[in-house]
Amino acid sequence: MTSALSRIKQNVDALIGESELEKRLRSKRPLRVKLGVDPTRPDLTFGHLVVLKKLRQFQTLGHEAILIIGDFTARIGDPSGRSATRPVLSAADVRANATTYLDQAFKVLDEQHTSIRYNSEWFDTLRFEDCLTLARTMTVARMLERDDFAQRYRQHIPISIVELLYPLIQGYDSIEIKAEVEIGGTDQLFNMLVGRKLQEGKGQPPQSVLTLPLLVGLDGFKKMSKSLDNYIAFNDSPKDMFGKIMSIDDTVMPAYYKLLLDAGATTLNRIQQHHPMEAKKQLAETLVAQFYSTETARYERTQFETVFSKHQAPDKMPVFSWQALVPNATEAPLIDLLAVSQLFATKSEARRLIQQGAVKINRQRQTDPHFLVTTPSKDHPLLIQAGKRRFFKVAET
Amino acid sequence: MTSALSRIKQNVDALIGESELEKRLRSKRPLRVKLGVDPTRPDLTFGHLVVLKKLRQFQTLGHEAILIIGDFTARIGDPSGRSATRPVLSAADVRANATTYLDQAFKVLDEQHTSIRYNSEWFDTLRFEDCLTLARTMTVARMLERDDFAQRYRQHIPISIVELLYPLIQGYDSIEIKAEVEIGGTDQLFNMLVGRKLQEGKGQPPQSVLTLPLLVGLDGFKKMSKSLDNYIAFNDSPKDMFGKIMSIDDTVMPAYYKLLLDAGATTLNRIQQHHPMEAKKQLAETLVAQFYSTETARYERTQFETVFSKHQAPDKMPVFSWQALVPNATEAPLIDLLAVSQLFATKSEARRLIQQGAVKINRQRQTDPHFLVTTPSKDHPLLIQAGKRRFFKVAET
Repeated sequence: MTSALSRIKQNVDALIGESELEKRLRSKRPLRVKLGVDPTRPDLTFGHLVVLKKLRQFQTLGHEAILIIGDFTARIGDPSGRSATRPVLSAADVRANATTYLDQAFKVLDEQHTSIRYNSEWFDTLRFEDCLTLARTMTVARMLERDDFAQRYRQHIPISIVELLYPLIQGYDSIEIKAEVEIGGTDQLFNMLVGRKLQEGKGQPPQSVLTLPLLVGLDGFKKMSKSLDNYIAFNDSPKDMFGKIMSIDDTVMPAYYKLLLDAGATTLNRIQQHHPMEAKKQLAETLVAQFYSTETARYERTQFETVFSKHQAPDKMPVFSWQALVPNATEAPLIDLLAVSQLFATKSEARRLIQQGAVKINRQRQTDPHFLVTTPSKDHPLLIQAGKRRFFKVAET
Repeated sequence: MTSALSRIKQNVDALIGESELEKRLRSKRPLRVKLGVDPTRPDLTFGHLVVLKKLRQFQTLGHEAILIIGDFTARIGDPSGRSATRPVLSAADVRANATTYLDQAFKVLDEQHTSIRYNSEWFDTLRFEDCLTLARTMTVARMLERDDFAQRYRQHIPISIVELLYPLIQGYDSIEIKAEVEIGGTDQLFNMLVGRKLQEGKGQPPQSVLTLPLLVGLDGFKKMSKSLDNYIAFNDSPKDMFGKIMSIDDTVMPAYYKLLLDAGATTLNRIQQHHPMEAKKQLAETLVAQFYSTETARYERTQFETVFSKHQAPDKMPVFSWQALVPNATEAPLIDLLAVSQLFATKSEARRLIQQGAVKINRQRQTDPHFLVTTPSKDHPLLIQAGKRRFFKVAET
């Protein structure tokens, strides 16, 4: 029993209601472990992985994972950790996003021991008056203590009144499913504590609350998030996933080992002995193996080593047809070739890379975006490299 | 037309949407004039009289008065101008209070041209989600600008989140009845402006908003209110009404003339010429006549003059039986006689009056509450006077 609790506590940032959790674990029955899912941003990142792994751990210990799809909540928009009111989604968008979310989450969770609940199930039947009853349970001052609200209020950034209702609605979900444990990122602590308070108000034993640290993004200092473009996505290709992990700052590697691989002190000590590059390759290989396969992971490692360590072009790369890219032209500006390849987010990104000297044509650096490239000959396709990892070829036809 | 507008503007503190009101009056159709009624405090005071008279004026000009009984709202509790969350009333309490309110209001309003609407009519059919949609229309910061909220927030006095919804709910009433004008005390300005905003959001022409000054209470400096015990009630007896008006501070008399009798400059000048006592008697007589009859008013004036000016006991006063008050006793403490007479709010009030020297037995001042009073003889009942206006007799049987 103590062993289950100590496993559960691993990597946990805050645990509220520990003695209750201990009692619950002692009861030997499957506990109802809640995770709130935000269906407004369906692309999962390794930031979500930290929380999902914890939930999976509960499943491994015999407990029930209950995913609450906040489809009703998504009509409101929660600003936790963000500084603006979110857009309202249509019911159809929300359902589509939820499906996408689940497809990804089941790469980590045990689908057989997961219950999916949409919170519209109960909120759609509640009345105007029920909303007022809920709103009566908390004061404005208490709600404005939440870090992000406090900050926005101080900075005169508008907070819609509906946003104050969000934590109450999320807390009400806990009542509805009689949650015994709720897990979430540290930025969800306030909301999860509201759940405890509401459950107590209804005479329910309050849920134990576990928060998990927020994973730092590729930049090495900000929370991993899509909007900061410093993320690794569940849906990244094996190559991108491997490459992105290799690009993380050395200083955050121990955190990745700990939070994503549950590395203990022994492992962390061991990786200190290695060269950081080697430790990072092991990290990348292990994670890619988890999301794809050992073979894929090993292949990506080899590719990575070929390209980076041996400064060679990879075995596989996209091959474009000159005729398709720039029909009927015998020469074309470099920037246009890069732009039509669609390997870059924007044309400006392509231009910046060229100007920074990161682009080579047939291994020759070229810094003028308007440099005119001539159509390749039949036997010698152009080899274009942009940055460290993007390669493509342009063949005559 | 200008004449109607200028009559409407008389005594008005703020008029928002004046040009719209002018246009509406020009249309010559009956306008829908809203007054929100709070069914949590059914005893009307002369503070309410100011607003009701304005509404009656609209009726006289051919418009429709729509009283919104906030029976749904009463389940929330609005703190406008007060510093605490109000108690929640049951539906039955609210209905009973509303009836009491209307009985009194029709002493001023024209019942034939008054529509009564209970706001539960629409709110009971609305859903949880509608509440969120409404809550989305305003920011926390904007709502905390309301004077009383701002003050409570500053002073760390709890504001329930539900209270932030109140102005929105009240504003929604305006949408529902398509209000063209709303009137209220100056402390309702914020809420009524929310109504305008919500109407505009729904594509309705926004209501014109008229606020009326708050009447100062008997003390001469605070807003008249039941909780401050400085009020004159619609249901006061003619004697109490007359006496209370006579007790107002001289400095507030012009305001009473203006707000309660619509006195213009001429009248106000004229009363300056009189002795304040005479002006006040005219005020009291006029108001008692409006609530009761000319005869009653004249009688109360005579009684008042007899008691106060000529220091005599009034013609009529309650007569108690000694046997009924203190059965089988030959003597009784003064305080007990006063207490059992039930002419005093509390026993402490009676004790204070005695100790302050305000109580006389047969015209002899008596300051000891425990002074033993002897049973009166058959032909000489006891005459007890407490303060200036309360007299009663105690006869042998």
